[in-house]
Amino acid sequence: MLTKSEVKYIQSLQQKKFRDEQGIFVAEGPKLVKELLDSGHFRCQELFVTEEMTEWTQGLSIRPRLISSAELERISGLQTPNAMLALFEKNNPAEVDPAGKITLLLDDIQDPGNLGTIIRTADWFGVRNIVASTSTADCYNSKVVQSTMASLGRVNILYTEPEVWVRQYPDLPVFAASPQGSDIRTIQPPAEGILIIGNESKGIRHALMGQADQLLKIPGKGTAESLNAAVAAGILMFWLNGN
Amino acid sequence: MLTKSEVKYIQSLQQKKFRDEQGIFVAEGPKLVKELLDSGHFRCQELFVTEEMTEWTQGLSIRPRLISSAELERISGLQTPNAMLALFEKNNPAEVDPAGKITLLLDDIQDPGNLGTIIRTADWFGVRNIVASTSTADCYNSKVVQSTMASLGRVNILYTEPEVWVRQYPDLPVFAASPQGSDIRTIQPPAEGILIIGNESKGIRHALMGQADQLLKIPGKGTAESLNAAVAAGILMFWLNGN
Repeated sequence: MLTKSEVKYIQSLQQKKFRDEQGIFVAEGPKLVKELLDSGHFRCQELFVTEEMTEWTQGLSIRPRLISSAELERISGLQTPNAMLALFEKNNPAEVDPAGKITLLLDDIQDPGNLGTIIRTADWFGVRNIVASTSTADCYNSKVVQSTMASLGRVNILYTEPEVWVRQYPDLPVFAASPQGSDIRTIQPPAEGILIIGNESKGIRHALMGQADQLLKIPGKGTAESLNAAVAAGILMFWLNGN
Repeated sequence: MLTKSEVKYIQSLQQKKFRDEQGIFVAEGPKLVKELLDSGHFRCQELFVTEEMTEWTQGLSIRPRLISSAELERISGLQTPNAMLALFEKNNPAEVDPAGKITLLLDDIQDPGNLGTIIRTADWFGVRNIVASTSTADCYNSKVVQSTMASLGRVNILYTEPEVWVRQYPDLPVFAASPQGSDIRTIQPPAEGILIIGNESKGIRHALMGQADQLLKIPGKGTAESLNAAVAAGILMFWLNGN
């Protein structure tokens, strides 16, 4: 049984303001919850499961709380609630070390779907660190959490002021995705550096663009105005991975 | 002024069933509508504009109908209606010719956002033809239409039975994206052929996979289970474009 105030508390976590206050986020569904538990990246505060899942939870280090399907429906952010909901403590790194590797820098990615896809793609290509401007979508937004498919537990995401952060690493090359850049097929992919991906409609902010050492263009043949930000990030990470 | 039955008719076009019956779809916002008009790909049946847009519509071959913001709100499928809504006739090709070029074959892409992104990416890379299984999301779904950013007017999309369609072109090589495939960095990109992208969770159906001449793998370094379908399609089109 859930108390009224528990229901209200869990529902409030759908809003960034309350997630920030509490330092807690929601993940749902057996597959995702299990992978996040396994990753060890986040401490689980509470695990709510419906009856059909009690067997599955045996052997877990956290003691699950049994709830009814009706209760799950009330606390779930999903259209089709799926047997299980967990509250995890957020795990924001204080710093990430960009030396010797590729770090993705997101400048105001607004769409949670794009952010989730970028995190998942970074995980695929072994990019371990993402730095995001403070106005980038929240990686603990439930749409992001669900769409990353547990990659959230394998990638460090630092929210900070991007221009200040970049200035800390003057020796690292900074690359920016831009239609004014050089065709990436003509450039040797670097082994380390910072790769900036801009906002879906505005691109990369002026000041940050000024910090780039090299602009990178994904060559096109058609007439489309631009690529989706997550697709562009994916292609650039594939290109870098070829190194 | 819109009549009640006009409002109902336009609202009904948010559903695939009615779009199919009427052969009509909805596009919204000045930028998108203008680009679709310019593309000449779709015949415009009706154009509804709010007062601030009347000057903009001068010189258009279609005579716009003036509506109020309140009326636009009633017929719009957007959260933030944007000054203009047009009804266009769908333009489904009877056939597409895959010879001498790359054709994308989508096997049950379910998410409208993914489909819209794939259409936009195809347009970017100059892929002119997409063949989609009949159970792929509808490219005239308003979420797809809005997210393609007018690329819908520059790419031919044929809905059909994919296995039957592939069999018509026995001389063309068929490629399928698959984690069991060969690393694409080790393969010379082909100049023509059919590239199959599978469903977001189930991948490519067995029978269609059996028709593939070569399986293609996007190499990863991390532990993510899979790439998003639109990102995978984007990377493969980038790779093909290098030809």
